[in-house]
Amino acid sequence: VTNRGVTRVACCQLDPVILDVAGNMERGAQAIAAAVARGADIVVLPELASSGYMFDSAAELAAVALTPDDDRLSGWREPLRGGAALVVAGFPERGADGLFYNASVLLDADGVLAIYRKTHLWNREKLFFTQGGRPPPVVHTRHGRLGLLICYDLDFPEVPRALALRGADLLVAPTNWGLLGRPPGEQPPQVLNIRAAARASHVFIAACDRTGTERGQHWTGGTAIVDAEGWVAATPGTDGIAIADLPLAAARDRKLSDLNDVFGDRRPELYGALRAGAEGGRCAQGR
Amino acid sequence: VTNRGVTRVACCQLDPVILDVAGNMERGAQAIAAAVARGADIVVLPELASSGYMFDSAAELAAVALTPDDDRLSGWREPLRGGAALVVAGFPERGADGLFYNASVLLDADGVLAIYRKTHLWNREKLFFTQGGRPPPVVHTRHGRLGLLICYDLDFPEVPRALALRGADLLVAPTNWGLLGRPPGEQPPQVLNIRAAARASHVFIAACDRTGTERGQHWTGGTAIVDAEGWVAATPGTDGIAIADLPLAAARDRKLSDLNDVFGDRRPELYGALRAGAEGGRCAQGR
Repeated sequence: VTNRGVTRVACCQLDPVILDVAGNMERGAQAIAAAVARGADIVVLPELASSGYMFDSAAELAAVALTPDDDRLSGWREPLRGGAALVVAGFPERGADGLFYNASVLLDADGVLAIYRKTHLWNREKLFFTQGGRPPPVVHTRHGRLGLLICYDLDFPEVPRALALRGADLLVAPTNWGLLGRPPGEQPPQVLNIRAAARASHVFIAACDRTGTERGQHWTGGTAIVDAEGWVAATPGTDGIAIADLPLAAARDRKLSDLNDVFGDRRPELYGALRAGAEGGRCAQGR
Repeated sequence: VTNRGVTRVACCQLDPVILDVAGNMERGAQAIAAAVARGADIVVLPELASSGYMFDSAAELAAVALTPDDDRLSGWREPLRGGAALVVAGFPERGADGLFYNASVLLDADGVLAIYRKTHLWNREKLFFTQGGRPPPVVHTRHGRLGLLICYDLDFPEVPRALALRGADLLVAPTNWGLLGRPPGEQPPQVLNIRAAARASHVFIAACDRTGTERGQHWTGGTAIVDAEGWVAATPGTDGIAIADLPLAAARDRKLSDLNDVFGDRRPELYGALRAGAEGGRCAQGR
């Protein structure tokens, strides 16, 4: 949090090219530089921004996966040099265990602050990636408490809820949202989802999506920065960058009325069904 | 579920008059009759439909609270006579324990099938009502598996999620949604919330709201029946009734792709933070 009392968050909605790591890193670095030039404290890139998404084979993924200390990843740190800004971006991680993870990295000018491995894998990701084994982290940074998650993780209401309960003020989500049909005038369902998640837990959310069409997959371009009441604070401008000044610490005031508090009113003792899979609870029987 | 293969659900958006039990019962019965005449299998009335909401004192509540076997409640069963329809409606319950509950009752022509006592109380409800001690029930009825909850319960993502996990196909929510400011063109935040909850758990939701202004409180009139993808299936017509034919059993097919399932993809072992209050989890420390 800067002395402006707010954190300037930017989402750079890119169109990564499948397998073109050098090009994607360069375009990512240019977008980060543009956001930093506009005063961004936190810059977010899409899911798998270094590689593209639509892998045809494990061999393709293996050819573009990076270890967190790979020199190529440091290309996204160059635009941060001499400043205090942070980057959150998606990339395919080659683990020390020889497995591949759909990961996001939190960077500052000096190096890697955190890595998160996606814990809910969408569709063919399951063929190529291993799901992360640890909960999404809450990272206390100089610009606020960030909860890291990725795309399909957001479809599980438990995930943003748990991150907010654990103290995150801003959820930072690189995404690749597949384009879904919707009635005219409606927002993408994925945006509706993050708005509801933000409102439910009184937490800010920055979802950085991608654009374009990749091997037949149409992407949504649904990037949105959402405030803690669930209203859309920013969507991308003509340069593809969504930018908003967010009073992140205000997320922590969860009082709704003299007698209500977003978290204080929870009844965790009644939510036991969430610990199990489907139909884990007992059903009352009517006739 | 009828031989049409769908369940016809109707929400009757009323404007209950504070403390006028006889009049509210009568207007409720007329609305139920109108919905049944249109073929409704399940008819929903708002929260506290028999009494109004804005109590000034415990004495006012005591004067209008009903036991579930009160003859006056049977007024809502009259229009069901000779048929198979069900009613879900809100009323202030006088418990055998001498305490008062913000409750909903599930009725058929023959009597009371279930009672639910609201487990999350909004604002001044806390002054007059006691919160329910048991989780919202899932009731297996002749018209589908109904999850019963009330208004502010919906603001806790854990509640609709747990009901769907426990096998509910349709969540039935009497509400009294206080009117909130919103930008032009936006739906009420409460509607956005139920749409996201329906989509997240692939479950149908019928929220029956109220209209009018009561002792200075403006109500939203946000009644909506939402399908399992989160789209609005019906809002009230000029007669105040929202009506939709819902293929309730279809809620149980939660396959999203060849490799994805709404519930099967959950990672309950990673959601431990939900068991505790705020900041119950460990936070990673960055710099």
